[in-house]
Amino acid sequence: MENNQIKNNSITRQEDDFAQWYTDVCKKAELMDYSSVKGFIIYRPYGYAIWEQIQKYLDKRFKESGHENVYMPMVIPASLFQKEKEHVEGFAPECLIATKGGKEELDDHLIVRPTSEVLFCDHYAKIINSYRDLPKLYNQWCSVVRWEKTTRPFLRGAEFLWQEGHTMHASEEEARTETLKMLEVYDDLGRDVLAIPFSKGRKTDKEKFSGALETYSIEALMPDGKALQCGTTHYFGNGFAKAFGIQFQSKEGKLENPYQTSWGVSTRLIGATIMVHGDDNGLVLPPEVAPIQIIVIPVAANKPGVIPAAREVAQKLVDAGYRCKVDDSDKTPGWKFSEYEMKGVPLRVEIGPRDIEKGQVVIAKRNDGSKIFCPIEELADKVHQLMKTIHQEMYEKAYKYLLDHTTDVHTMEELNAALEKGGYSKMMWCGNQDCEDKIKELTNATARCLPFNQIPNGETCPVCGKKASKVVLFAKAY
Amino acid sequence: MENNQIKNNSITRQEDDFAQWYTDVCKKAELMDYSSVKGFIIYRPYGYAIWEQIQKYLDKRFKESGHENVYMPMVIPASLFQKEKEHVEGFAPECLIATKGGKEELDDHLIVRPTSEVLFCDHYAKIINSYRDLPKLYNQWCSVVRWEKTTRPFLRGAEFLWQEGHTMHASEEEARTETLKMLEVYDDLGRDVLAIPFSKGRKTDKEKFSGALETYSIEALMPDGKALQCGTTHYFGNGFAKAFGIQFQSKEGKLENPYQTSWGVSTRLIGATIMVHGDDNGLVLPPEVAPIQIIVIPVAANKPGVIPAAREVAQKLVDAGYRCKVDDSDKTPGWKFSEYEMKGVPLRVEIGPRDIEKGQVVIAKRNDGSKIFCPIEELADKVHQLMKTIHQEMYEKAYKYLLDHTTDVHTMEELNAALEKGGYSKMMWCGNQDCEDKIKELTNATARCLPFNQIPNGETCPVCGKKASKVVLFAKAY
Repeated sequence: MENNQIKNNSITRQEDDFAQWYTDVCKKAELMDYSSVKGFIIYRPYGYAIWEQIQKYLDKRFKESGHENVYMPMVIPASLFQKEKEHVEGFAPECLIATKGGKEELDDHLIVRPTSEVLFCDHYAKIINSYRDLPKLYNQWCSVVRWEKTTRPFLRGAEFLWQEGHTMHASEEEARTETLKMLEVYDDLGRDVLAIPFSKGRKTDKEKFSGALETYSIEALMPDGKALQCGTTHYFGNGFAKAFGIQFQSKEGKLENPYQTSWGVSTRLIGATIMVHGDDNGLVLPPEVAPIQIIVIPVAANKPGVIPAAREVAQKLVDAGYRCKVDDSDKTPGWKFSEYEMKGVPLRVEIGPRDIEKGQVVIAKRNDGSKIFCPIEELADKVHQLMKTIHQEMYEKAYKYLLDHTTDVHTMEELNAALEKGGYSKMMWCGNQDCEDKIKELTNATARCLPFNQIPNGETCPVCGKKASKVVLFAKAY
Repeated sequence: MENNQIKNNSITRQEDDFAQWYTDVCKKAELMDYSSVKGFIIYRPYGYAIWEQIQKYLDKRFKESGHENVYMPMVIPASLFQKEKEHVEGFAPECLIATKGGKEELDDHLIVRPTSEVLFCDHYAKIINSYRDLPKLYNQWCSVVRWEKTTRPFLRGAEFLWQEGHTMHASEEEARTETLKMLEVYDDLGRDVLAIPFSKGRKTDKEKFSGALETYSIEALMPDGKALQCGTTHYFGNGFAKAFGIQFQSKEGKLENPYQTSWGVSTRLIGATIMVHGDDNGLVLPPEVAPIQIIVIPVAANKPGVIPAAREVAQKLVDAGYRCKVDDSDKTPGWKFSEYEMKGVPLRVEIGPRDIEKGQVVIAKRNDGSKIFCPIEELADKVHQLMKTIHQEMYEKAYKYLLDHTTDVHTMEELNAALEKGGYSKMMWCGNQDCEDKIKELTNATARCLPFNQIPNGETCPVCGKKASKVVLFAKAY
């Protein structure tokens, strides 16, 4: 069969300028637009719909594991924000602050939430009294504001959409379990929904969340060799609980402070999905989050019966549970092929007069461009199987990239060389922050995580030469 | 069967102090809590879950009618906000304004969105070029901030959750149709989901939205005789489009300004639901929005087999698609009855040793307290039927109240007497705003709407005595 695809040449090629390619895709696939508010983006329908799919998966998982959604105020009084010292120091430089309400100057300025730990703690102090009130497993879907100097669509912005879980537990053990359990939920999202293999692990103290005792993260590797932190979970111990006077009477009748966690993922996941899977023709979306999973395109649409046949095929796929559309507009098939490739639609179904005669359609896979013929009566089954295959292929491709770009390093020279090449540098670390600082200073790379999968590749720290037992992944990062 | 219900006496009775009853229910049913941010409430899990049910229904209806969700920035530059004069005048007095970002003073202050017309228009100006780009049917789920002096949970607050639809159309007719169509969707929500009969109609010019040409509303009557505006749809003509330079090339090749609508409902609907259906035992929730539709309570739970039987019954109902929980805690049945009455759970299923013997359960309806026995094997069918009955009964009760509290008035004396009694005063109106102003001045009542159902009850305006052809509903309002 003739290949009548038309390459969309209006976006920068990845190898020419990856950052520009990314921006081009964000705009051309109509995922977002810039707004008149500096640093704030508009989530356009196609981008927002991806977020809705992510929400749907996570919200279900959260609820299944006993979490409840709530909604807290979008602003935090400055007086309240200052209660936990480390926390406020971490966030103060990037806060947007409201100082006027109506015609009045506000005595207590209001900080537009950069995160809501303090609001949850303030509320928990009121509603937690007894061990019977625990655990409290709350989650919130909202947007937060971080006053960032340099912004990039989905990756770093003045405002982004996210979920923030905030939980309180009677015991340290239970809170620690929650911290790791939610990281697993995020990891499942990567594996089963976004087709992204995450590296899971603990953050170094230098990289952890302001106010947390421990931070865990999922990290993904981008095609430019840089790591992207895609989600974090935090274990707080009872530091905030003490600062906010949250106490409960234990089963034994003692007054105790509960143990706290928080965890979040954001629309940054859209950025990860764009980069991990995209190519020079645009987006390549994993089937689970694709707003349109199948696009049906009539070929030689002016011939009698073609448009009705295309619509019938599309309806069949809608009935089978797919997000499927037919494009029967008067644009050329070539234009349409290029458009839906740009939009990363996983499957394209073509149907023309000859196909109708033969009772078949052509199915093209976005992820590798391959095409097959399929009898119409087998279409739903075939599509079902192809969707699974596509997801698997996308995951495996990303996983292979991850493996190919993880380098074992044992010396500073090797580290430099590996970071130059891009990807993760896996090395032993003595655990001393000085060595971590030095790497950052020399290479601008940061410790992404101490991966759960701790398989030592040496015995000494490449920086100080001292004995080292921790495996750490370093990389340049977004 | 013995009536072992325990009245929850910890809330104020409606007839003693309706406003206090309302606040008591909001707190005791754990729908909300006050936060440390003056005027801002916390949407607790039980309250937020009601909102999620409302969202689910509306989001489906919006999408089915071709609307797409987007997300716009939460702040609006002051310079942009001032582009449409009437609009800014209406909202400026109640804006929360950010003046600092990070350590810097902002040149262009940022207004926390009270509504997003200007952001949508600013975006539409960029993306609408041709008639092919129309209509644009966008919706946004978010929160907005109005710096209100006096606030009441769900009814009037500094921040509330809502959806705002913003659409652009090539023709005036299409935009007008959209304005009325979305009002119908809201009306359906009332009839089919909230069991609230809304009065639909057009707002007078005095009461319309700042910047709109026409505003339509759904109004509900509360048990204290006051009306509550529950949602509005606006037709803007092309005023904003001109102010923001939104133009498209028509099919005929002419440059034209598109026609605009916006429409919204908010968490105020939760307030309406609480008031319309609640009683002295607490909330009474319509089945469609009840976070828990059925509570199963084991009676004599210490007897062998009771708790497993209760769990089995609950599982059966979960499998049948209901939001059903079993309370097998060690609290007394009396405490539990009272608790789930407070929470307005539509059906309570009781099961004790004698019930198990007989293969039956007791079902109690929250809306009228009636009880029946039901063989366990018929339970799912019976529940299905009861849920329909409850919804219908609740709607009819509210509708009867509405009819009983709508008084035909023909003179100022009758108007005064009717408003004193509470409810709607239906009267003829000359259409002159002076007469509307005078009623407000004398009685503090406002024109709620010119109902679509225009059945004249006279020929002259009670205020000026002049010829009048418009039917209007006046009431004191929230």
